[in-house]
Amino acid sequence: MRSDKRQPDQLRPVKIQTNYLMTAEGSALIEVGHTRVLCAASVEDSLPSFLRNSGRGWVTAEYAMLPRATAERTPREITKGKQSGRTHEIQRLIGRSLRSVVDMEALGERTVVIDCDVIQADGGTRTAAITGGYVALALAVKKLLEFGVLKRNPLKDLIAATSVGVVKGASLLDLCYEEDSAAEVDMNVVMTGAGEFVELQATAEKLSFKDDRLLEMIALARKGLAELFELQKAAIQGK
Amino acid sequence: MRSDKRQPDQLRPVKIQTNYLMTAEGSALIEVGHTRVLCAASVEDSLPSFLRNSGRGWVTAEYAMLPRATAERTPREITKGKQSGRTHEIQRLIGRSLRSVVDMEALGERTVVIDCDVIQADGGTRTAAITGGYVALALAVKKLLEFGVLKRNPLKDLIAATSVGVVKGASLLDLCYEEDSAAEVDMNVVMTGAGEFVELQATAEKLSFKDDRLLEMIALARKGLAELFELQKAAIQGK
Amino acid sequence: MRSDKRQPDQLRPVKIQTNYLMTAEGSALIEVGHTRVLCAASVEDSLPSFLRNSGRGWVTAEYAMLPRATAERTPREITKGKQSGRTHEIQRLIGRSLRSVVDMEALGERTVVIDCDVIQADGGTRTAAITGGYVALALAVKKLLEFGVLKRNPLKDLIAATSVGVVKGASLLDLCYEEDSAAEVDMNVVMTGAGEFVELQATAEKLSFKDDRLLEMIALARKGLAELFELQKAAIQGK
Amino acid sequence: MRSDKRQPDQLRPVKIQTNYLMTAEGSALIEVGHTRVLCAASVEDSLPSFLRNSGRGWVTAEYAMLPRATAERTPREITKGKQSGRTHEIQRLIGRSLRSVVDMEALGERTVVIDCDVIQADGGTRTAAITGGYVALALAVKKLLEFGVLKRNPLKDLIAATSVGVVKGASLLDLCYEEDSAAEVDMNVVMTGAGEFVELQATAEKLSFKDDRLLEMIALARKGLAELFELQKAAIQGK
Amino acid sequence: MRSDKRQPDQLRPVKIQTNYLMTAEGSALIEVGHTRVLCAASVEDSLPSFLRNSGRGWVTAEYAMLPRATAERTPREITKGKQSGRTHEIQRLIGRSLRSVVDMEALGERTVVIDCDVIQADGGTRTAAITGGYVALALAVKKLLEFGVLKRNPLKDLIAATSVGVVKGASLLDLCYEEDSAAEVDMNVVMTGAGEFVELQATAEKLSFKDDRLLEMIALARKGLAELFELQKAAIQGK
Amino acid sequence: MRSDKRQPDQLRPVKIQTNYLMTAEGSALIEVGHTRVLCAASVEDSLPSFLRNSGRGWVTAEYAMLPRATAERTPREITKGKQSGRTHEIQRLIGRSLRSVVDMEALGERTVVIDCDVIQADGGTRTAAITGGYVALALAVKKLLEFGVLKRNPLKDLIAATSVGVVKGASLLDLCYEEDSAAEVDMNVVMTGAGEFVELQATAEKLSFKDDRLLEMIALARKGLAELFELQKAAIQGK
Repeated sequence: MRSDKRQPDQLRPVKIQTNYLMTAEGSALIEVGHTRVLCAASVEDSLPSFLRNSGRGWVTAEYAMLPRATAERTPREITKGKQSGRTHEIQRLIGRSLRSVVDMEALGERTVVIDCDVIQADGGTRTAAITGGYVALALAVKKLLEFGVLKRNPLKDLIAATSVGVVKGASLLDLCYEEDSAAEVDMNVVMTGAGEFVELQATAEKLSFKDDRLLEMIALARKGLAELFELQKAAIQGK
Repeated sequence: MRSDKRQPDQLRPVKIQTNYLMTAEGSALIEVGHTRVLCAASVEDSLPSFLRNSGRGWVTAEYAMLPRATAERTPREITKGKQSGRTHEIQRLIGRSLRSVVDMEALGERTVVIDCDVIQADGGTRTAAITGGYVALALAVKKLLEFGVLKRNPLKDLIAATSVGVVKGASLLDLCYEEDSAAEVDMNVVMTGAGEFVELQATAEKLSFKDDRLLEMIALARKGLAELFELQKAAIQGK
Repeated sequence: MRSDKRQPDQLRPVKIQTNYLMTAEGSALIEVGHTRVLCAASVEDSLPSFLRNSGRGWVTAEYAMLPRATAERTPREITKGKQSGRTHEIQRLIGRSLRSVVDMEALGERTVVIDCDVIQADGGTRTAAITGGYVALALAVKKLLEFGVLKRNPLKDLIAATSVGVVKGASLLDLCYEEDSAAEVDMNVVMTGAGEFVELQATAEKLSFKDDRLLEMIALARKGLAELFELQKAAIQGK
Repeated sequence: MRSDKRQPDQLRPVKIQTNYLMTAEGSALIEVGHTRVLCAASVEDSLPSFLRNSGRGWVTAEYAMLPRATAERTPREITKGKQSGRTHEIQRLIGRSLRSVVDMEALGERTVVIDCDVIQADGGTRTAAITGGYVALALAVKKLLEFGVLKRNPLKDLIAATSVGVVKGASLLDLCYEEDSAAEVDMNVVMTGAGEFVELQATAEKLSFKDDRLLEMIALARKGLAELFELQKAAIQGK
Repeated sequence: MRSDKRQPDQLRPVKIQTNYLMTAEGSALIEVGHTRVLCAASVEDSLPSFLRNSGRGWVTAEYAMLPRATAERTPREITKGKQSGRTHEIQRLIGRSLRSVVDMEALGERTVVIDCDVIQADGGTRTAAITGGYVALALAVKKLLEFGVLKRNPLKDLIAATSVGVVKGASLLDLCYEEDSAAEVDMNVVMTGAGEFVELQATAEKLSFKDDRLLEMIALARKGLAELFELQKAAIQGK
Repeated sequence: MRSDKRQPDQLRPVKIQTNYLMTAEGSALIEVGHTRVLCAASVEDSLPSFLRNSGRGWVTAEYAMLPRATAERTPREITKGKQSGRTHEIQRLIGRSLRSVVDMEALGERTVVIDCDVIQADGGTRTAAITGGYVALALAVKKLLEFGVLKRNPLKDLIAATSVGVVKGASLLDLCYEEDSAAEVDMNVVMTGAGEFVELQATAEKLSFKDDRLLEMIALARKGLAELFELQKAAIQGK
């Protein structure tokens, strides 16, 4: 039995509050259990230098945690003057994942920045950021289409992410912080709405593992992702 | 007539949502019009070096804005590797203001850090941070008293802050961003519940001013602060 | 009786040595008691980006202390790689104050940088920097007028600053370091030659205060500022 | 046909030169095709703070590229004053991988730092760093055992890494830079000598993929890793 | 004929104003022609870690230029967040030079920091800093001897520095900025009162040179240094 | 007798392996005893701003040590976020030395960057970097001449460097680390193939010295440099 009484293949309750910010082109506050991430999409005219005059656009992401998102206060990264390796790793993952479903020619010469700020952290912040970040991106794109800035939809598919882990020998979907800390294996899966992998990162924190375990974990992830895709669609359509 | 139809001596609607975070000892999400600041109080055992073994405690504050709190995205300070002068100035003001009502001996050898993170900005973020930061501090202190960690209440009085400005020659209470940008004079007042000044910062952005104008602005501030003190009391008592 | 035998409403001896540097367009070494600040005005062709092609100029200030300006050596800020909050706060104040008396269209598309370097510190360095910085600015402007670079004088008025404080219940003009450390209230006033406020910053370091005290402190500041304006005029005219 | 005429399941020529440095406790210069990484193991008495007095040791890694390791010169990270996200990500991966086969109690209260400096880069630098870093670690451990500093061998197994990718629809083992740039999918596999996964990172750079492709790529990796384990064993035994 | 009508073997006018700062243990404002450097000696109880509990002291130096010391304003190093290579090089040279005449055991477990701040620069700032820095050091030592903090004089000899250069084929003593910019060879010589070399740095900026030229330049330096030693002695004795 | 049985006027064994990198325009791995420095020449189209449109080129150098080049691991400079004073000093010396033999008009509007990375350090890394850096530069220039990018050879002469020191009263050529640590005087000499000085830096680490010692040390350097020039010529010609 899991600490919050979930079944091994059960997601935590997920809520996506759209347009949380009146300032941003698109925004979503996603809650996955106690984890809360505010995702904001900003459409900017600038482009990274390697894309200038290419006719193509860019999507990038930034990730941060508020200092008191965690049970013990975490000092702000600005105090040290530099971002941690963990932050770098996560924001690169979010950006890469979102870009995989964007037709950059349809987006045209503009950058969409997805800011993912963790308000409260209870495990799975990077996967929540991808799932919520996609909603913020989709809402911004919707607005650009409505205003005629974009002629055709640059979003080729949905994209969402979840985690799976092995805790005391059992494969579990969507780890909370307590489970994550005790996990023998930890895996993040990013998948398209069509059910294909975009990223798959499995780490044996305490115990190496074999192919059959890998396939079992993938099956769990696939189940959770199917539910997340439905929630994303409903949120984007404003239901 | 003001852009949002308020009277010159009228505050924007203020809402204080307490215990917004389950992770922090005390927290409050304060909304002043469209301005939204999340204030979190963290109680830590460490002390700045000049206070070690002094029998006295410390209260300090940190302030930051999420990148999309503003109508145009503001790059994170971590991107440059250092905090702006504006951030430094504001967090020093918040810390100084809160310390003015704390009996540091009653607090004992611990530090309370007040994190003020601006979720959405529409003028008056620093004054909202002081007003909301006090509530987060008071809630954390309440918890320490309940658990018997503190023997007596270190809070000597309430503290709140508001802004007043001169726009097109008229003195106005609680400027929103649009008014603030156009203001000839801008003043922030920090006051104790007993009605005494703790900080008074008046800046002639466009037009220098005389004593009578100063007194007129102070009277407006006093009116707004009286209302804020009532809202703080209700929030802290959980009404 | 004050530690240096001054009356409560008496400034410390003030000396302004003009053209201290042969390298700068304008410069002044101002001494206020033991406080010594070297102010240098540099006229540059560049402009901050928000002013390019606006037909308007800019005035900005930088402030620093030599490490042995203080009784105990203060490490250079470069050692830490970043400026302290105090430095940021002070140089923003100096810049804002000086800009308030400059007609930016008359100045034209150029920047004047006022460097204020504290050689020796005994309280009141930021107000001395404003008072001396104005002299350096005025001397540089004079030179630009003489050389025909400027067609009309961009300086609309004089600007000077002084401090007032409450020490053991008594309001005192122009605090030295010893008085400043013990002050219950500390106020800096920046005023135009016409006697109007440009900045007024009052901080209750130890004791909150009321309106009557505020007015009493303002009256003291006004007296000291009147004397500083005379000294500035004499210095600029080369008497 | 691959650009260097290899079969799809063929590694590039691998050479491991041991004890390349007389200064380090253990070192290995590994060449995988044109990729050359110098790996050095340093045994230090210090420990990260969370491990002090725990009776346990630590293994960590640092990764860098010489500026002219690449066909176009890459500016040193010190020029910007901070490490890139890519560097952070890679050195975390190397450290995590090596730690997975170390018995930290047998290692005792000491840190082994594995420095991986890329002399020449032609794809696969992070996997070469893991494979060569293990050899440097093993040589340092061997020395500690010989000198009686360690009582028992803290190395529980071998660890090595390789890459697999999909290029023009074909799954290929051990991508060189040219192949890597064109890859639709890129996967790094870190495996123990016992054939169990420690890390598996698959990224769909251009095309999402399904389970069967994943299994096909894993099989290729397994073949290459078997060969790398033999080379590691020979190198460590000094053959 | 030199631009300022000096003979080839003639120093610029040198003035050393002692005890310029009331805050420092020892201080000297040295002027060499238009070059003006403020040197301050601070005696501190701390020691660099490699000297703790060694019974020995340390002397170190810091060097900086005020932004308007130069004919064109030089941005502060703090703006970039780091010291230039030139600054590093100079302050290492000053520290090394001063240490060469200090008996570190007689100094005891304390550090003397010599701050050399260039107020106005016209060539030869590093050599003026050494010459003036020695005076500040000697004055601080004198005070420590008077107060009985030191039992015996840790200064074993005088130390001073000057520059020599080759301009249009002629060897010249003590280059001003204009000469320095045009010099084919530039040499700095640091010498003890006993006439022995401590540092000799010759750089062929435009033309390589031979032994005879080297000896000619050394002879010039020796002449200038003899005069500087007399000025130092007079300054330290308060004449 | 020296620790490695050399005569006082004997260089350590020197080996120069050319074209060590296939990625760089020119490269050389130089070994001087146990000291090993990898020198790489990169030809870039950019120019420092002060040279743009001048028709002239530039040569610059960067220097770094791998962390385990030393007997005890030296933390990477990136860990602190800034280069040490020593690094700055050395790379400025290398750049200045190489530039002294380059005809910048013949080089044309391009920059050659010489990266000198110390693989293993046993004293004399800066002089080895100059000697090896020249070879890398010469090889890159040779390639540019062969490809017709350069019309005439911009290299006016050879340049090499060596060290001389006084150890226990004896003047010794080419100090290894052990000798260097114990040296009373340490001198680096950079000389052209024509036997003229480009840089001469003598430092009395422990004992000041006179003219006759200087001349004795110069004679030793001259002998060593003659041998280095022969080795450079052979390396560049591919013998």
